[in-house]
Amino acid sequence: MKINGTHYRTIWLAEDGWGVEIIDQTKLPYAFETVTLWSMEEAGVAIKDMLVRGAPLIGATAAYGMALAMREDPSDMNLGKAYDHLLATRPTAVNLRWALDRMRGKLRYLAPKEREDFAYREAALICDEDVMISEGIGRSGLEIIREIAKTKKDGEPVNILTHCNAGWLATVDWGTATAPVYMAHEEGINVHVWVDETRPRNQGASLTAYELGHHGVPHTLIVDNAGGHLMQHGQVDMCIVGTDRTTAKGDVCNKIGTYLKALAAHDNDVPFYVALPSTTIDWTVMDGVKEIPIEERGGEEVTHLTGKTADGRVETILITPETTQAGNPAFDVTPAKYVTALITERGVVKADEAALAEAFPDLAAA
Amino acid sequence: MKINGTHYRTIWLAEDGWGVEIIDQTKLPYAFETVTLWSMEEAGVAIKDMLVRGAPLIGATAAYGMALAMREDPSDMNLGKAYDHLLATRPTAVNLRWALDRMRGKLRYLAPKEREDFAYREAALICDEDVMISEGIGRSGLEIIREIAKTKKDGEPVNILTHCNAGWLATVDWGTATAPVYMAHEEGINVHVWVDETRPRNQGASLTAYELGHHGVPHTLIVDNAGGHLMQHGQVDMCIVGTDRTTAKGDVCNKIGTYLKALAAHDNDVPFYVALPSTTIDWTVMDGVKEIPIEERGGEEVTHLTGKTADGRVETILITPETTQAGNPAFDVTPAKYVTALITERGVVKADEAALAEAFPDLAAA
Repeated sequence: MKINGTHYRTIWLAEDGWGVEIIDQTKLPYAFETVTLWSMEEAGVAIKDMLVRGAPLIGATAAYGMALAMREDPSDMNLGKAYDHLLATRPTAVNLRWALDRMRGKLRYLAPKEREDFAYREAALICDEDVMISEGIGRSGLEIIREIAKTKKDGEPVNILTHCNAGWLATVDWGTATAPVYMAHEEGINVHVWVDETRPRNQGASLTAYELGHHGVPHTLIVDNAGGHLMQHGQVDMCIVGTDRTTAKGDVCNKIGTYLKALAAHDNDVPFYVALPSTTIDWTVMDGVKEIPIEERGGEEVTHLTGKTADGRVETILITPETTQAGNPAFDVTPAKYVTALITERGVVKADEAALAEAFPDLAAA
Repeated sequence: MKINGTHYRTIWLAEDGWGVEIIDQTKLPYAFETVTLWSMEEAGVAIKDMLVRGAPLIGATAAYGMALAMREDPSDMNLGKAYDHLLATRPTAVNLRWALDRMRGKLRYLAPKEREDFAYREAALICDEDVMISEGIGRSGLEIIREIAKTKKDGEPVNILTHCNAGWLATVDWGTATAPVYMAHEEGINVHVWVDETRPRNQGASLTAYELGHHGVPHTLIVDNAGGHLMQHGQVDMCIVGTDRTTAKGDVCNKIGTYLKALAAHDNDVPFYVALPSTTIDWTVMDGVKEIPIEERGGEEVTHLTGKTADGRVETILITPETTQAGNPAFDVTPAKYVTALITERGVVKADEAALAEAFPDLAAA
């Protein structure tokens, strides 16, 4: 997608064919800075310190980390060492292990002298595949937006509400929830996005608002509290959100607060869609509310906020009394009955067990 | 309620019988400072600049403002001038006009020399009546908490979720939604409050957390997004919120986001109570969603936040890209069907037209 009029992916190979370039997302939305990774260790730091974040992008960065390791020393010993080192950077990210397993699984059968070239090509392939998946999600969702656009009078936008950042900054390009939005915008449909700020980490305010703004998609930031009111007053035509884990029956575990928006959508007959690559479906889980453990994060994410002062300094402030303790569950589960449908790279799929198994027979059976 | 172990109201007469003391709420939660108002003009500034806020407290401050005016000059001309001046400070606050009408309506029939003493007594009466109303709400709600406490095993708290600040800082003492909580705590019931931070102005994080903390009531701050998840997992026994306007049929207009919590409570069979003095019932409104105009406030409340840095400075920060525009509806409407009951100074009343008319025949008919 575009930043200051130039098309960017979130990760790409430098012109010298060695370095791997990324956007330092810790500086967003206050500064756009790219960083070049020259070694496996630097790739590890980029993941660990969240210069890159979002499961697909973490996987892509780890894949390039393996390529950088093979450039330096393609021995079996270094292959194992790089795998372990990168895996330890964010041990809970599913895509990280997936990408590392794929890289090691193929590299180990090659002669060391063939490994560097292969690893760079495989990492590039992982990135391209991720873009294709996002494009597939985008095309599936675009059909839905087109249908809503047909019901609008001239000049009336299709109003789409999203929560958190399931945008291109979390993937290699396009994003998941944002892919249909970008495609609709590119084809000239009048779309407008309500961007939930998504406390406590404010990925909506800092990342979704940033990427939509730079790509020129009309949007308005709102507090997480506001979506229900907008839906009551006909100001939301559809919701699209992402998901961190989806159950075999279509329950959706996503950033905290997603469930509240789904309830409001249900109460006001607003369609509520969840966009996902099929890799986020956990076929072993049946009941999302009962079975999915919810990460409890540090309370300082609630009590403290970081931003920019009027004179340009980045400051962290406390917004509560000194002694206030905070709870911070990071995700919630939206039961499948509140999900209108899942938007996947294989089309729009009903959020139920039979429909999911039919759409993904290869994965469901595995 | 208590601050640092000492009992305070939010407004009281100074020992000299002239000055009117208030807590400067713009300094909370970072500093507790009282201010003495010596003139009608100073009372006006305190209301306008939000040193005092919350409808009942605004009314009480305006009443004392009239007393201060009568002390300086009890003429008819000054009575009218003070009325106009104070009314203009916050033109939308219902209780402001109510308190001023009551003061002027009585003072105008007195001889000027009798006005000062009467005005001070009447202002004190308005404060005492407000405390009595809060105590009535507290006793009504306490019964509900007692019943829930009976179902708890030893050591298990009654978990109460509240939104925004309908606390003693918004009234003269006790608060509305918090009154039952304080009374339950005082009688030794093990209560624990989930405090929604209530973006954008964060009255939960800065005021409710402050007052519960100083009074010693166990509480945990959460983001507004978290309540649904807690209810799904049995961690909320009841919700109690306040209301800015209640319709004749029991719809509740309260701080933005209240509706989302009511939906989650409904979905998880958690009772959802609204605490209110009967003065907030607007008997002329039938359909809250359709008829109540919702104030749209400035977007900078969403994009900017104020708090304290680690070295003790109070700073305002921007949390979005420079160009991001924000929408900011300040209230939403919770339809009566999602309200378990209304907790009033005349007892617990069902949120429907017949029950309200029966409980308040004198007001409903007016």
